Amino acid sequence: MAVEVHNRTETQIMTYDTYTLEKDLALRARAEAALPAGVYGHMNSRIVSPAHPQFISRAEGGRIWDTDGNEYIDFICSYGTNLLGHHHPKVDEAARKQQALADCTSGPSPLIVELAEKFNEKVAHADWSLFAKNGGDATTICVSAARAQTGRKTVLLAAGAYHGATPAFTPMMGGVIESDRAYQLTYDYNDIDSLNNAVAEAGDDLAAILVSPFKHDSLVEQELPTQEFAEAMRAICDKTGAALILDDVRCAFRFSSGSTWETINVLPDLCAMSKSVANGYALSVVTGNNKFRDGVSQVYATGSFWFAAVSYAASLATIAAIEEEDVINKLKASGTLLRDGLNDLANSYGFKLNQSGPVQMPLLMVEDDPKFEKGIYLCSQAAQRGVWLHPWHNMFICSAHEEKDIKEALDRVDGAFQALRKEFGEG
Amino acid sequence: MAVEVHNRTETQIMTYDTYTLEKDLALRARAEAALPAGVYGHMNSRIVSPAHPQFISRAEGGRIWDTDGNEYIDFICSYGTNLLGHHHPKVDEAARKQQALADCTSGPSPLIVELAEKFNEKVAHADWSLFAKNGGDATTICVSAARAQTGRKTVLLAAGAYHGATPAFTPMMGGVIESDRAYQLTYDYNDIDSLNNAVAEAGDDLAAILVSPFKHDSLVEQELPTQEFAEAMRAICDKTGAALILDDVRCAFRFSSGSTWETINVLPDLCAMSKSVANGYALSVVTGNNKFRDGVSQVYATGSFWFAAVSYAASLATIAAIEEEDVINKLKASGTLLRDGLNDLANSYGFKLNQSGPVQMPLLMVEDDPKFEKGIYLCSQAAQRGVWLHPWHNMFICSAHEEKDIKEALDRVDGAFQALRKEFGEG
Repeated sequence: MAVEVHNRTETQIMTYDTYTLEKDLALRARAEAALPAGVYGHMNSRIVSPAHPQFISRAEGGRIWDTDGNEYIDFICSYGTNLLGHHHPKVDEAARKQQALADCTSGPSPLIVELAEKFNEKVAHADWSLFAKNGGDATTICVSAARAQTGRKTVLLAAGAYHGATPAFTPMMGGVIESDRAYQLTYDYNDIDSLNNAVAEAGDDLAAILVSPFKHDSLVEQELPTQEFAEAMRAICDKTGAALILDDVRCAFRFSSGSTWETINVLPDLCAMSKSVANGYALSVVTGNNKFRDGVSQVYATGSFWFAAVSYAASLATIAAIEEEDVINKLKASGTLLRDGLNDLANSYGFKLNQSGPVQMPLLMVEDDPKFEKGIYLCSQAAQRGVWLHPWHNMFICSAHEEKDIKEALDRVDGAFQALRKEFGEG
Repeated sequence: MAVEVHNRTETQIMTYDTYTLEKDLALRARAEAALPAGVYGHMNSRIVSPAHPQFISRAEGGRIWDTDGNEYIDFICSYGTNLLGHHHPKVDEAARKQQALADCTSGPSPLIVELAEKFNEKVAHADWSLFAKNGGDATTICVSAARAQTGRKTVLLAAGAYHGATPAFTPMMGGVIESDRAYQLTYDYNDIDSLNNAVAEAGDDLAAILVSPFKHDSLVEQELPTQEFAEAMRAICDKTGAALILDDVRCAFRFSSGSTWETINVLPDLCAMSKSVANGYALSVVTGNNKFRDGVSQVYATGSFWFAAVSYAASLATIAAIEEEDVINKLKASGTLLRDGLNDLANSYGFKLNQSGPVQMPLLMVEDDPKFEKGIYLCSQAAQRGVWLHPWHNMFICSAHEEKDIKEALDRVDGAFQALRKEFGEG
């Protein structure tokens, strides 16, 4: 295995020796003053690694460039909004055409009907669809629809799962009061006993079970759902009339052009999608079946920008591209190549990687690394060689990641493993 | 007063006789099936009038076109997101340039710093700013920041005020449970006694007072705040350490390039803005002072599209245009011309109009019309003549409404008053 530090001469400086974040650090100092405490939320680079830049100036396909001109092959993919690559020609062209007509006006564009019909056609459980802006808007509407339909209050959710940054669900408790979490009970993902216990505790007040397509919590191994677990949920909801709500915000369109649990033949009643549904244009979607049509119709779902036609045009083009370009198989192929290559690299340097979850949304952890020190160091070193990885949040493959990009990324990461071996001994 | 039905030959068909919504009605039937119950939220045209079209295909400046090709001079202005006119050249050019670089990536653009610095410079109370997507995101963050900072829970808000479609604030109760409204007390707008009573009831648990720049509830007369009322709020918050939160989502940038209460010299601690801040590109803003910097830093504020750089570029261009083009004075001049012209028209047909609120955001009510029958009829007739008015929600002027547009609108509305007189007698 070659251990040369990768040195690209044809684009930006990419060697460890000359890598600098000078401009980025100067901007961070301004951000500390101008924003409450620097960049906030999941975009705060401090949560990734000390070496990752904070600001991104340019994006193309599956690559991004920071303000110092460093290029990265990007396996965060905008935390999931980048599905087809930045500046996908057909998506951007559809958006431009619609922008020339109208975006936000005093009424929705006819595209709202076309897009809802498209979701109803593609998503197996969908009899109706509606559109919002944040993933959290969509999950909130699902919960409200379930409560309106059933006249009950209690919602079950997996302990530790992320369902958005609203007071009801945010993982950080600053500003949250206990009433924001009233009528919530938790179960453990893939644990049918814990699910049954929560159902028993809810008694006759069970409004909904909220679940992610797979366990994609930060900091712990990802877990695919067992068939029994998913089917148990479906059976409980069928029996009680509660809504099975799939929080597909992060996953939708990376596994299927419908809801992600169509891949295991378990259909939810309500589904929240966002992130990749318009390839980076801001949009979220609620799809539902006729059992919950009355309920959702009672919910006042609206927002100033929820009817923005450009995002609808982008979503229609994204859905078309998924099939025309065989996107899901491409994601699988590239994800598999990356996973196998990273395993080979790690092994060659005497490390073992634990790569969990589906290859389209991999989580990378170095074995024997309880405090993530090796993982953070590895990702820092990868960043300095132009590969953007994350040490404890799931990553994303986009369909602009071609075989040659994955191979180039592995070439670049080779030096990061070399540095890891130097820093942490023989693994 | 001329009573000819206005007939524009140079653009679309605009005569009462040939006005049709045939395509619109066909689309509405499809929308009933594809969406939960037709178009939802504030964009549901059924809430405006039976004659208003549901769908809008094209927009330019201060005009919109429906799917049947009918043109409207638009005084709803996308419920406030249209401030400078659709397709403002400098705003759209800034957005296009940024789109060519990057929109949503794995980190924010440097523009987030530039835009925060711009808000901090323009908004008198702002020591820091942060950006989100919905107006409701911004008001929610303000409340969470106040609770985090003070360690208290109770929030005061005006009875009947609209603060977004979240479970905590939505005016429709479908899917809302009582815990969503825990720790809320109400006062009556402009009623200092009711405010003092609510403060007394909150006791030592007062976290925040939430208030709109003026009373702009639907279905009732708008009211400007009295100086005493606004100052009483400021004094209570100064005394108790509670946050004065201005919900400037609907009003921001139509009265000042800072927060709207700068016009009466009362500064909030926290302010939520949205709607017009990027001239139709999806963006909301929280601005705050240093007293609440720690509090807001504890709130996990984030969303998949909150760091979209195109909206930041659009907002920077919007802020520049407001000053370069003397937008606020233009809105006042056009709004005054419209108000005076509508009054004259109404009087000439034996009606009286009650036009409340500031001229930039007028609310139009026909006197002696408790069930809004005359207002709805008038707005229906105006729609059929190519003027988009609202019978019970505040309207909006945009700076693309030039004097000639207002005069043309009044010409068109003349026929609507003629029809109103025919339908409802001599007024």
